[in-house]
Amino acid sequence: MGRPVPIRIAVDLLGGDGAPESVLSGVAVALRRDADLHVTLVGPPQLAQRPEPDTHDIAGRSTVVPATQVVGMDEDPLRGVRTKLDSTVCVAARLVRDGAADAMVSIGSTGAAMAATVFNLGLLAGLTRAALVVTVPSAAGPVVLLDVGATAAPAADRLAQHAMIGAAYATARLGIPEPRVGLLTIGEEVGKGDRVRRHAAALLAALPVAFVGNVEGDDVPRGGRADVIVTDGFTGNILLKGMEGTYALLAGLVAQEMAQHGESARRAVSAATDHLHPERIAGALLLGVNGVVVVGHGASSPRAVAACIAQAASAVRDGVLPRLRDALAALMADRVVAPVASLPGGGAPR
Amino acid sequence: MGRPVPIRIAVDLLGGDGAPESVLSGVAVALRRDADLHVTLVGPPQLAQRPEPDTHDIAGRSTVVPATQVVGMDEDPLRGVRTKLDSTVCVAARLVRDGAADAMVSIGSTGAAMAATVFNLGLLAGLTRAALVVTVPSAAGPVVLLDVGATAAPAADRLAQHAMIGAAYATARLGIPEPRVGLLTIGEEVGKGDRVRRHAAALLAALPVAFVGNVEGDDVPRGGRADVIVTDGFTGNILLKGMEGTYALLAGLVAQEMAQHGESARRAVSAATDHLHPERIAGALLLGVNGVVVVGHGASSPRAVAACIAQAASAVRDGVLPRLRDALAALMADRVVAPVASLPGGGAPR
Repeated sequence: MGRPVPIRIAVDLLGGDGAPESVLSGVAVALRRDADLHVTLVGPPQLAQRPEPDTHDIAGRSTVVPATQVVGMDEDPLRGVRTKLDSTVCVAARLVRDGAADAMVSIGSTGAAMAATVFNLGLLAGLTRAALVVTVPSAAGPVVLLDVGATAAPAADRLAQHAMIGAAYATARLGIPEPRVGLLTIGEEVGKGDRVRRHAAALLAALPVAFVGNVEGDDVPRGGRADVIVTDGFTGNILLKGMEGTYALLAGLVAQEMAQHGESARRAVSAATDHLHPERIAGALLLGVNGVVVVGHGASSPRAVAACIAQAASAVRDGVLPRLRDALAALMADRVVAPVASLPGGGAPR
Repeated sequence: MGRPVPIRIAVDLLGGDGAPESVLSGVAVALRRDADLHVTLVGPPQLAQRPEPDTHDIAGRSTVVPATQVVGMDEDPLRGVRTKLDSTVCVAARLVRDGAADAMVSIGSTGAAMAATVFNLGLLAGLTRAALVVTVPSAAGPVVLLDVGATAAPAADRLAQHAMIGAAYATARLGIPEPRVGLLTIGEEVGKGDRVRRHAAALLAALPVAFVGNVEGDDVPRGGRADVIVTDGFTGNILLKGMEGTYALLAGLVAQEMAQHGESARRAVSAATDHLHPERIAGALLLGVNGVVVVGHGASSPRAVAACIAQAASAVRDGVLPRLRDALAALMADRVVAPVASLPGGGAPR
């Protein structure tokens, strides 16, 4: 047998605060770590040159597809994507649509990446919205958390969609046959939270998912109560960043202290805690679009860029998209009450 | 000189999952730690008896004021407080109102404690809402975070009130003359976040506080960008619990690992990290009501109950309420644009 077919990832060269340097460095790291990876850099060719020539282990495994425009972080994403057809996110999304790339990674504007991929790839059947999902390495195993920033305004029908796609994702990605779905709110008692959450709780209870009721903020890092935790993108983003900041702060203090207690102690502590490191979360997967799309923090380091690329490659290798499509279709077929797309504000399914 | 006048704290005997036992144990701990403390237990006298007689160091320093009803966690707080005038929270609030207690602590329903104190003590001049505030021990010094659960639904005028009272509190409690106020949202750029945040950003910019613009979830644990971080009670509660859960998880893993590396290493790590422990946050102060009111988690341990009582005593000793009143009045006098109480939904000041 020959080598496996390489996974081809389209990478937005102009995304993120450190672009293009941090992107180029991250791509080099990712290529070195994964011999069966090919990267298509999407951006101005003159910016796609690394200062030193590629070493032989990664030479020839990246190509450039020109794109001259960028949708900036401070720009309206919808407008940007509509008017800049030659922007990096639009070109990358078309590469995925046309089968020239297996997945796309952007570290820049989440809104732009979302708009470009929704327009060019479309949404999975039955959905009217995409959501950003991360898998949080909790104390009691992985917790799928969504949305973490795709849509800021909370709406009950969107939370219901998140529950469906999140459950399908937990099945497709983590192999959990009947994932427990929790609704993130304040107070565990039924009826706690705001109006949107009370409405959403009723909708979720009618969906063909194993709804376990309300969960609270600490159930995300602690785990154990739900495999999938559903929230709006505003709350999810702030929670995720708060958890990341807390981890970084505490891990930094512990590492500093450990430096005075010998290498073996330091290593032991790292071994016990590194699996929870937020950098392992890296990027978020844009769930619901008809393609594999990973969106990173705007401030991502080369290491984090490499992790986003590795995450995209792993999702492609594991066949997450076809599995997700199947799992979602199975759930949709079971859905006899409260069809998501017919809920107020839901719009028509695509 | 004689002994200082003892601080008198009214404690809700029936608040919290472990009541009355956990409350009684917490009171004993608090009394032992603070010789100038007197506790008034508010609840059914037959439940206010500890199994063993008080040791001499705390004997005679707690009394019981009868209250026969309780507003439960699963009860509508407004209705509960209106109909149960002999409930623990109502009786405790009246003790504060009548000067028979200097402060009140409840570990039970936040909504009930808030309703009882707003009704009985009233709000500070210029405010139409109370907010729950915590001081988070961030990497770069204390960060005042509010609201963490008083009101779930976000509204721009409420966020503006939080900014005013939060800034006054940072001055009164932490001695910061011109506290920097940040608005918690997703994305640092102007215009990021949801509609409420965009509206709130405009309101905050017009207030006589040092508004530093948008901050993100990780700015709470990291600190350094703002002394006061303003958000709605839904987001703030979930962020706080997410940070607490992350801390507990990581600290637990580190402690477990350290057990194998000797006592000195374990102690050193504790010394480096304990000041960030969420149990140090203990309860939240109900800010804006005309009295010192501390509200704890429903699941508080005796240690956490004791910490809430100590927090209330410390606020009384430091004269936080009169200082807060002065600081808020000074800010209100400076407020020439966009008076908070006349904002949409703001209502009339009390």
